[in-house]
Amino acid sequence: MIGGGPAGLLLSHMLHLGGVDSIVVERQTKAHVLSRIRAGVLEEGTVRLLRDVGLGDRMDREGKPHDGTVIAWQDRAPFLIDTHKHTGRKMMAYGQTAITQDLYAAYERRGGELVEGAADVRLHDVTSDSPFVTFTRDGIAHRIDCDVVAGCDGFHGVSRQSIPADVLRTFERAYPFGWLGIMSETPPLDDIIYAQHERGFALASQRSPMLSRYYVQCPIGTDLADWPDDRFWAELKARFPKPLADRIATGPSIEKSIAPLRSFVAEPMRYGRLFLAGDAAHIVPPTGAKGLNLAVSDVFYLQRALVAHFKAGDDRWLDSYSETALRRVWGAERLSWWLTRLLHVFPEQDGFDTRVNQNEFDHLCASPTAQAALAEQYIGLPLET
Amino acid sequence: MIGGGPAGLLLSHMLHLGGVDSIVVERQTKAHVLSRIRAGVLEEGTVRLLRDVGLGDRMDREGKPHDGTVIAWQDRAPFLIDTHKHTGRKMMAYGQTAITQDLYAAYERRGGELVEGAADVRLHDVTSDSPFVTFTRDGIAHRIDCDVVAGCDGFHGVSRQSIPADVLRTFERAYPFGWLGIMSETPPLDDIIYAQHERGFALASQRSPMLSRYYVQCPIGTDLADWPDDRFWAELKARFPKPLADRIATGPSIEKSIAPLRSFVAEPMRYGRLFLAGDAAHIVPPTGAKGLNLAVSDVFYLQRALVAHFKAGDDRWLDSYSETALRRVWGAERLSWWLTRLLHVFPEQDGFDTRVNQNEFDHLCASPTAQAALAEQYIGLPLET
Repeated sequence: MIGGGPAGLLLSHMLHLGGVDSIVVERQTKAHVLSRIRAGVLEEGTVRLLRDVGLGDRMDREGKPHDGTVIAWQDRAPFLIDTHKHTGRKMMAYGQTAITQDLYAAYERRGGELVEGAADVRLHDVTSDSPFVTFTRDGIAHRIDCDVVAGCDGFHGVSRQSIPADVLRTFERAYPFGWLGIMSETPPLDDIIYAQHERGFALASQRSPMLSRYYVQCPIGTDLADWPDDRFWAELKARFPKPLADRIATGPSIEKSIAPLRSFVAEPMRYGRLFLAGDAAHIVPPTGAKGLNLAVSDVFYLQRALVAHFKAGDDRWLDSYSETALRRVWGAERLSWWLTRLLHVFPEQDGFDTRVNQNEFDHLCASPTAQAALAEQYIGLPLET
Repeated sequence: MIGGGPAGLLLSHMLHLGGVDSIVVERQTKAHVLSRIRAGVLEEGTVRLLRDVGLGDRMDREGKPHDGTVIAWQDRAPFLIDTHKHTGRKMMAYGQTAITQDLYAAYERRGGELVEGAADVRLHDVTSDSPFVTFTRDGIAHRIDCDVVAGCDGFHGVSRQSIPADVLRTFERAYPFGWLGIMSETPPLDDIIYAQHERGFALASQRSPMLSRYYVQCPIGTDLADWPDDRFWAELKARFPKPLADRIATGPSIEKSIAPLRSFVAEPMRYGRLFLAGDAAHIVPPTGAKGLNLAVSDVFYLQRALVAHFKAGDDRWLDSYSETALRRVWGAERLSWWLTRLLHVFPEQDGFDTRVNQNEFDHLCASPTAQAALAEQYIGLPLET
């Protein structure tokens, strides 16, 4: 695996369970990987998979099951995307950082081979039967010969860039805004709440009973220096209906940052003996919280294919990996794009767009069928078997 | 009523049943109105309403009930939007021209007062308690004093234009293509079929067992002279999957024309004692066949409100007319826009849009819940009571 984030570590873990050896090569240190703060709203299929592979104990202890996500639209009564009511299944709020910690702990327990701080990682001969990976560490050159390479090194990683431009087709959508987020040691609201407001989108989320995460949509080019805490809290509260705004507990921020939004897909997800998984192949905007769940479904398809390849000499799943994984990827890309468009204010948005969005929300509130159709996608479509 | 198309005639008919007198003023002759060829795919609610007001006999005899509309996507197996399966209700193919004939027949049977060939129609004092309408006919000036004016005179009519610009808010979407259509005396395909193809959208429709109506998406500015029948048939067949294309019976066209596509809504639909209904207030692109059905729902809300006003002195429905009608209008605008975007090729469309559309269709084919959510809107949302 190139990359020691959740995709690479989970793949290595699951391959190990299937009797296939692997080595994880990570550019950063483990400490650095664990310092990256990421959201974590898990689909029910992700929760079940983590339990099935022995990674569910702490998640079930510390994670917070929830019935769905709330949309607060202007000053209307909050509306719950009730995944539990419509699908019988629940989401789980459990941070990506915690999952990565659990994966590292499992990795270390079984004595897995992890290369940290690998510089100048390069992939070689991936279209041959004997690919290899080179890197340097502490100034010393290393080479790993392998059967296959899993590119789990994220959007900026080397794996996707190793595929020639005439093979790789990319699809991209840039958004003319970002998310300005803060973390504060204050009690969060009970629910995860998306606020749609003419001033722009806002989001109330949480990491623990005394750790809140809030975001407001901000224009591209926003300078953090212009956003002292007071301004952030005032803007956040202005975007929530008053009864909810009044319940937001404010306090000093302990982290503040701006995240860009991007939709991106690279096709195919296979090049010879190189297989991409997770952010290396695709990015979704955070609306809908699909990023980590997609990485997990990629890993599910890829480990299944690799175990069949190594253990049974059966390459059918390996040959269909890219196509199968991409179907699920595009479903999540479509949902994330739809939710982003529904809930944000676009600079180029005209009155027609605004009315169509309002009607979409009206229809959602009025139609149990529309609610079920959204809930089924929000909870996560089933893995193809 | 200003306008003797289906909206004005149906409103007059239903008001008569409720004991309210009216006069229909039409700029054209009845013969001209009846010469306009329009599609007619009726929602189940429209069918029921026409039956309820005594206009169902010929429709039930000559109209063709159908289970839904077929989408033929590239070379994939045709997919039925099965409104009957998902809602228990059926659509009805019955031409707007036939409905208008039925309405004229009913109008004449009861000796309704119809002013044909009214020139220079003007609305006066519509914000007062005593509005009046003036027009000339055969050079002679006429004036009709009335309690209320119903603007049923279509997109280009005088009614909407009588509302001051600072009161009226308009919402519009122009499409960078039109529909090039022909009528031919050939047996149609069994179903109404929307074809999605990289060459552009196409549609197979029908008027009777020996009268077919076909369309192909064409660029703005297309010249009919460049489209002899042979070219049309070849292009049409190229956009359908081969098994369907082989079944299209070709023949000389008896009519050929290009229709632009437009989404348009005017708000509010009331100004003093002037009430807009149908195309005077809103236009949808023909994808989804919602135009006539929306006119019928406007008329339902308006006659109910006017009967309550005149017979019971109750103005609640009159005061909520615009808001109630617009909710349904925006639902149809959203669906028509969504279907148009899904099925056409836009000049500015990029690979991301194309993949999202493909996934939308894949998801529709795979998910009964998504099918039900579409079917419920396609068959027509219930009238608010």
